[in-house]
Amino acid sequence: MSSDQAPDIHRAERNSGNEHFATAYRRIAGFHYPPNIRLAVNFTIDYDAMLNRRLKQEPAMELSQGEFGGRVGVWRFLELFDRHGIRATFFTPGRIAELYPKSLREIASRGHEVANHMWEHRVPAEAELEQDHLRKATAAIAGICGRRPVGSRSSHTPSLLIEEGYLYRSGYGDIADELPYYLLDEHGRALLNLPHNVNIDDAMYYHFSWFGSANHAQRLGDPEEVHEVFLSAFRNLYRAGTYMNICLHNFVSGRALRIALLERLIVDMKRVPGVWFATCEEVANYCLDRFPPRIP
Amino acid sequence: MSSDQAPDIHRAERNSGNEHFATAYRRIAGFHYPPNIRLAVNFTIDYDAMLNRRLKQEPAMELSQGEFGGRVGVWRFLELFDRHGIRATFFTPGRIAELYPKSLREIASRGHEVANHMWEHRVPAEAELEQDHLRKATAAIAGICGRRPVGSRSSHTPSLLIEEGYLYRSGYGDIADELPYYLLDEHGRALLNLPHNVNIDDAMYYHFSWFGSANHAQRLGDPEEVHEVFLSAFRNLYRAGTYMNICLHNFVSGRALRIALLERLIVDMKRVPGVWFATCEEVANYCLDRFPPRIP
Amino acid sequence: MSSDQAPDIHRAERNSGNEHFATAYRRIAGFHYPPNIRLAVNFTIDYDAMLNRRLKQEPAMELSQGEFGGRVGVWRFLELFDRHGIRATFFTPGRIAELYPKSLREIASRGHEVANHMWEHRVPAEAELEQDHLRKATAAIAGICGRRPVGSRSSHTPSLLIEEGYLYRSGYGDIADELPYYLLDEHGRALLNLPHNVNIDDAMYYHFSWFGSANHAQRLGDPEEVHEVFLSAFRNLYRAGTYMNICLHNFVSGRALRIALLERLIVDMKRVPGVWFATCEEVANYCLDRFPPRIP
Amino acid sequence: MSSDQAPDIHRAERNSGNEHFATAYRRIAGFHYPPNIRLAVNFTIDYDAMLNRRLKQEPAMELSQGEFGGRVGVWRFLELFDRHGIRATFFTPGRIAELYPKSLREIASRGHEVANHMWEHRVPAEAELEQDHLRKATAAIAGICGRRPVGSRSSHTPSLLIEEGYLYRSGYGDIADELPYYLLDEHGRALLNLPHNVNIDDAMYYHFSWFGSANHAQRLGDPEEVHEVFLSAFRNLYRAGTYMNICLHNFVSGRALRIALLERLIVDMKRVPGVWFATCEEVANYCLDRFPPRIP
Repeated sequence: MSSDQAPDIHRAERNSGNEHFATAYRRIAGFHYPPNIRLAVNFTIDYDAMLNRRLKQEPAMELSQGEFGGRVGVWRFLELFDRHGIRATFFTPGRIAELYPKSLREIASRGHEVANHMWEHRVPAEAELEQDHLRKATAAIAGICGRRPVGSRSSHTPSLLIEEGYLYRSGYGDIADELPYYLLDEHGRALLNLPHNVNIDDAMYYHFSWFGSANHAQRLGDPEEVHEVFLSAFRNLYRAGTYMNICLHNFVSGRALRIALLERLIVDMKRVPGVWFATCEEVANYCLDRFPPRIP
Repeated sequence: MSSDQAPDIHRAERNSGNEHFATAYRRIAGFHYPPNIRLAVNFTIDYDAMLNRRLKQEPAMELSQGEFGGRVGVWRFLELFDRHGIRATFFTPGRIAELYPKSLREIASRGHEVANHMWEHRVPAEAELEQDHLRKATAAIAGICGRRPVGSRSSHTPSLLIEEGYLYRSGYGDIADELPYYLLDEHGRALLNLPHNVNIDDAMYYHFSWFGSANHAQRLGDPEEVHEVFLSAFRNLYRAGTYMNICLHNFVSGRALRIALLERLIVDMKRVPGVWFATCEEVANYCLDRFPPRIP
Repeated sequence: MSSDQAPDIHRAERNSGNEHFATAYRRIAGFHYPPNIRLAVNFTIDYDAMLNRRLKQEPAMELSQGEFGGRVGVWRFLELFDRHGIRATFFTPGRIAELYPKSLREIASRGHEVANHMWEHRVPAEAELEQDHLRKATAAIAGICGRRPVGSRSSHTPSLLIEEGYLYRSGYGDIADELPYYLLDEHGRALLNLPHNVNIDDAMYYHFSWFGSANHAQRLGDPEEVHEVFLSAFRNLYRAGTYMNICLHNFVSGRALRIALLERLIVDMKRVPGVWFATCEEVANYCLDRFPPRIP
Repeated sequence: MSSDQAPDIHRAERNSGNEHFATAYRRIAGFHYPPNIRLAVNFTIDYDAMLNRRLKQEPAMELSQGEFGGRVGVWRFLELFDRHGIRATFFTPGRIAELYPKSLREIASRGHEVANHMWEHRVPAEAELEQDHLRKATAAIAGICGRRPVGSRSSHTPSLLIEEGYLYRSGYGDIADELPYYLLDEHGRALLNLPHNVNIDDAMYYHFSWFGSANHAQRLGDPEEVHEVFLSAFRNLYRAGTYMNICLHNFVSGRALRIALLERLIVDMKRVPGVWFATCEEVANYCLDRFPPRIP
């Protein structure tokens, strides 16, 4: 790809005040998949339930919508993925481990990856508190699932994630490329980044909030159309041979009137050869093994 | 359904400050429909007319749109439902009984259910005033229709509704499941909840407000597309065998350029077997008889 | 139609503070069209150009978009309507008569109706100033077109319009029915209302403003889809035999990438029998002659 | 075209406080293309990368999206245009020359036009600072590309652009016609305007911002649909024989899930005869040679 010609390490001029934003990254030179693989697909589920809604002090309607995810939606996802032999990555706030432990145990026992999604769906600005949150969330998941998470969907500081034993991050704030790449921390240590793709995130198409702030999408997409958008994205990413990180939410796509369309998407995806349905951890391990970070 | 595995009673950690929000609910274990029924469909009409718009101090254009519902839209609904032998539930603010008594009498005499939708489309925060509102609204409907309402679309406090003889609530704030379930009040008494579904509410797709707050949807959907969205929802809920609570507004779907599409939806729905077109009261009575609340 | 059963005169409980809002209206009992007519279609053009944008202190981009209407769009409409033998109603602010006199003369000489759209696209709250605005706007149009306007798209006070010799109003604030009806002023005098229909207004589907307030629609519709929406509206209004008041803007639909779709709409509309393409004045005169207001 | 009858020079009554807004313009009388040409198509790319986002102090997610344009998107555009023999115009802020010099050199060496897009994506209000910004941006591009830019997408003051040797402007603030026209400065000097078309700008259909202000579009269009919108626009502009200035952004259309649709658009456009794929500079030179500005 021509993008190989883009600068390898680039200290972006960023001054947004977001301290957890990586200040440099390193492209993986000559990235390629294993033989016979053309595209890796990571189904990622942000298991927020009502935590994010509560943080934003939204009213009952919103909380209740979110709660649906922990009560009903998550079980629908489990059935769907089982039926199709797909193992997904559930990015889970630590607090969810307390609220819905049964579902988390089930997720883990069925072979899915349970990864970190902050403690209560926010990253504190204070370093000490941030560390405390990350450790609590890590312990909560490990306590339920019997295994420490190795990935995080968050803007947790790369150096902190590295020190806590994390292998990769897949947050909303590092989407400057479409292939996996490395984030460098201030000591030059590397953390793999599996870029989220805002364009294949169900919340972008389905979420509606009467009461929410103007920052919320105000739309309720037609599931048939969203299916077309996702399928078109798959087709084009497959053709380009890049990487597909698809983001779903229990409380959004787990509803009866949407889950069937998601199933149709999976069926359609399976028709073409060379698609690697994997957890994020599996893709991360492949990258780390095959293309280890070069020390700058 | 796998959601049976979700926690049965769950004291959600909610602190949104909305005091009327139920603090616990009880799933109906082993919920099923009568033999040969696959899906209950409740057509619910929120008979707001201009009340909600006036509360928000919107200008003439909005008030006038709402007023259309009481003058024209409601009669179109009555014709449509008669033509197809459907009995619906009209959630009606008490003040509407004063403003449009003729239409209310007609609704009742044709066999539809007239239920509560607050006094003037708001639930006061003060307990005494709330009780006053609920009683006035109940009396206004009973006075016109000759029968007390047994259901409420509102966030009226569950214990208050129970004390006033209500059997069920179907508000916007308890949509944590897709099947009927019980709300528990602080004394452990149960009120049936027939969950509204924000995704099959006409206002979400059609309502537009030039003057409204940013919290209003800014869109005017294509009726042909909205028909497809509703039909797709029906198809998927039917397949899942859950429950369909479809929410309409006189002033939204009662317009000549939309009502024909609603008719087409009804015709399409009637093509498949096992659909129970019922009032909310009928579904509530079925649930209460067949699956009475267990005392905790 | 069943809506005949709606209350005939209804003093709506309105307290929106908009003093120009009619406080009562009278439905036309037994309204029907002349023999062989099933639907009247009024093409109405709001000839705002940049006036409304300037009032809202929008920046160059918006002003410039509006200006397109007076420079280019209006001429495209004239060509289109000529080609199809349609006479339309151009609701024109008085100030536009000063800014684009040539186009106004052309509109009038081709047989279209030039009607009032306020002085500078606002109705002052002060009675004296309001009268001054209405008189200036009336005189400006009469001066250019040789004839006083008889209709107004505005919220000008009904009694003032009556005193200034107007026959009808077709504003955004009186859309409580879909058929022509009478507005009653405080002296019981009647002004015909030709209800605007927010759902067949091009600005609702096409207008976009980067810089505008949150009250602006933020969308840019696909002209092919908007054509479908308008055609579907026509089909359903035709079937219901009501009334079609379609609202267009020079600067919105007068663009090369949209005008062709408008032409296709006209061609499609002409395929069915019994459509009366008329100016608002013609429809108003029919109503006033055939169904004169009864004195209350 | 009938629009020839619009006023030739019109001192618009504008008081928006935007001082860089041209106060008059001159239509090109009898504008026509060279023989056998029916429509000029200018592919313009606004090479903003993250500059605009940073100015608005948006968070990491937005910055990172923008950065994608400089790292990946721009190279995809180069490949695409090469494959189809199209030379485009890249409107580039001066700061981008510092951040992504390699891509700029490549753009220039492949025969595309590199034009001005301000220094850091804003035009200062102070005259001296504005001049400084324009000179720095001009020098930065000239330094990298070996040639001074002759066009600007901005609201830079026409007289300043003329004094700095610019031939044309193609900003968002002068879209009062669809054909090229002249902007007159306060001394009566003319600057060619190549009107941008907000309706064929990819950011209008694709850009989404969770964190952005309410002024941002909140939508993520389906690439298949956006393709249809653009193709429909092309079809109608071709039929009208006007001018097509299509605006793209590296970070928007340069994504793998969209670029294929852009390619399909180009393929479709090439199927019809008489389309002139040109840089803005080429169209500007044609206009200046064939229709030089008349001194007022």
